[in-house]
Amino acid sequence: MHDKPTNLPANLPATQPGGEPLKPFTQMVVERRATTNFLPDEVPEEILNAILQLGAQAPSGYNLQPWRFIVVRGEENRQRLQTVAYNQPKVGQAPVVIIALGMKEEWKETADEVFREGAARGAGSPDTVDQYKKGAIDFVSSMSQDMWVNRHTMIAFTTMMYAAEAYGFDTAPMEGFDAAGVKLEFNIPDEAEVVALLAIGRAQEPDKVYPGRFPLERIFFSERYGEAWESK
Amino acid sequence: MHDKPTNLPANLPATQPGGEPLKPFTQMVVERRATTNFLPDEVPEEILNAILQLGAQAPSGYNLQPWRFIVVRGEENRQRLQTVAYNQPKVGQAPVVIIALGMKEEWKETADEVFREGAARGAGSPDTVDQYKKGAIDFVSSMSQDMWVNRHTMIAFTTMMYAAEAYGFDTAPMEGFDAAGVKLEFNIPDEAEVVALLAIGRAQEPDKVYPGRFPLERIFFSERYGEAWESK
Repeated sequence: MHDKPTNLPANLPATQPGGEPLKPFTQMVVERRATTNFLPDEVPEEILNAILQLGAQAPSGYNLQPWRFIVVRGEENRQRLQTVAYNQPKVGQAPVVIIALGMKEEWKETADEVFREGAARGAGSPDTVDQYKKGAIDFVSSMSQDMWVNRHTMIAFTTMMYAAEAYGFDTAPMEGFDAAGVKLEFNIPDEAEVVALLAIGRAQEPDKVYPGRFPLERIFFSERYGEAWESK
Repeated sequence: MHDKPTNLPANLPATQPGGEPLKPFTQMVVERRATTNFLPDEVPEEILNAILQLGAQAPSGYNLQPWRFIVVRGEENRQRLQTVAYNQPKVGQAPVVIIALGMKEEWKETADEVFREGAARGAGSPDTVDQYKKGAIDFVSSMSQDMWVNRHTMIAFTTMMYAAEAYGFDTAPMEGFDAAGVKLEFNIPDEAEVVALLAIGRAQEPDKVYPGRFPLERIFFSERYGEAWESK
């Protein structure tokens, strides 16, 4: 019945396209810069598929997965997206741009399926699915849905950004777009929140300079707000 | 003057504590499960420092870094946090729990410093900092600040979750807490949004079963909403 994993990634390439090993997480976080201009070189199909499969594994509250993504590759569509993204050239240049959406309603319809599948696989009992579902819907409904889907969608979004970087590709996470325009151009339903855009490809030029970051003691506190982090 | 990188991570451990290599990103995403119960074993100081340093490198719009984090390790403080996190035992069990905050006001005060440092390092020109800053503040202010800080903070949060997993530790991302209670207990200012909690440590028992995920064609669309993803 449930001998096999349900939708665990399969056939993930074990190396970058050129055969180099995947970038270690430490390296990709330290070296990643947002890309300003992309080459037209395509992202190989098996790499794009791996990025999407990894994004789909991101965690979500109650496993509700309240995210959907539009993968835009057609040149005309990328140009249309560029026009509703303040005409940023990288949108039209990048071979792949992912529109990340948070869905504020759909999860209520799919919760039953998610919990029944989970229970069938040993995550909870089939007998208590209805009760569990009621608890989940009550809890999540008690939060701002805008906030909730934005938080969640960014986990999957960030996962895909790092997946692309692990395979040696360049990325640009983008917050500059006219959400209403994006929804109109890409047939996106009202309940969706357009959360972010992710361009993936190969950079035209060397990375931008590193602009620096706040030192740890400025953004981390020990034990309570206001007590600057000090490593023991 | 600016010969050296500003706050790029230093002394990142190259291996897991036992000497095993860092987990490849593909493996950690596929194998990661939210941990229900943690052992009391501490997270070594150099690993925790690495996790924080990596989180600090996460990207943000205009490099504004509108996030702050409280690292809770004291037993009494973890118990206090547990009481405002629906009494979830993992909060009190885990040796480290990070409270992730999005700051809705502070970035306006620190933007000048961020842009001047960036310009001094070659990201833009010192002559246009004031103009750039005005553009950034106008743009970001035009968005819901709740939404904006939630989106951003989740990038750094997700980065720290994967950093911990790369070093072989177990994690639990949590959305179940009373935000007002957390703010009161940890001296957090009004402008802050409590975005999520991240517990880090070692799991007591084997991972939970994998509950499955939607197949790719349910969450990814090709070119426009409603056209199910099909790999070429």
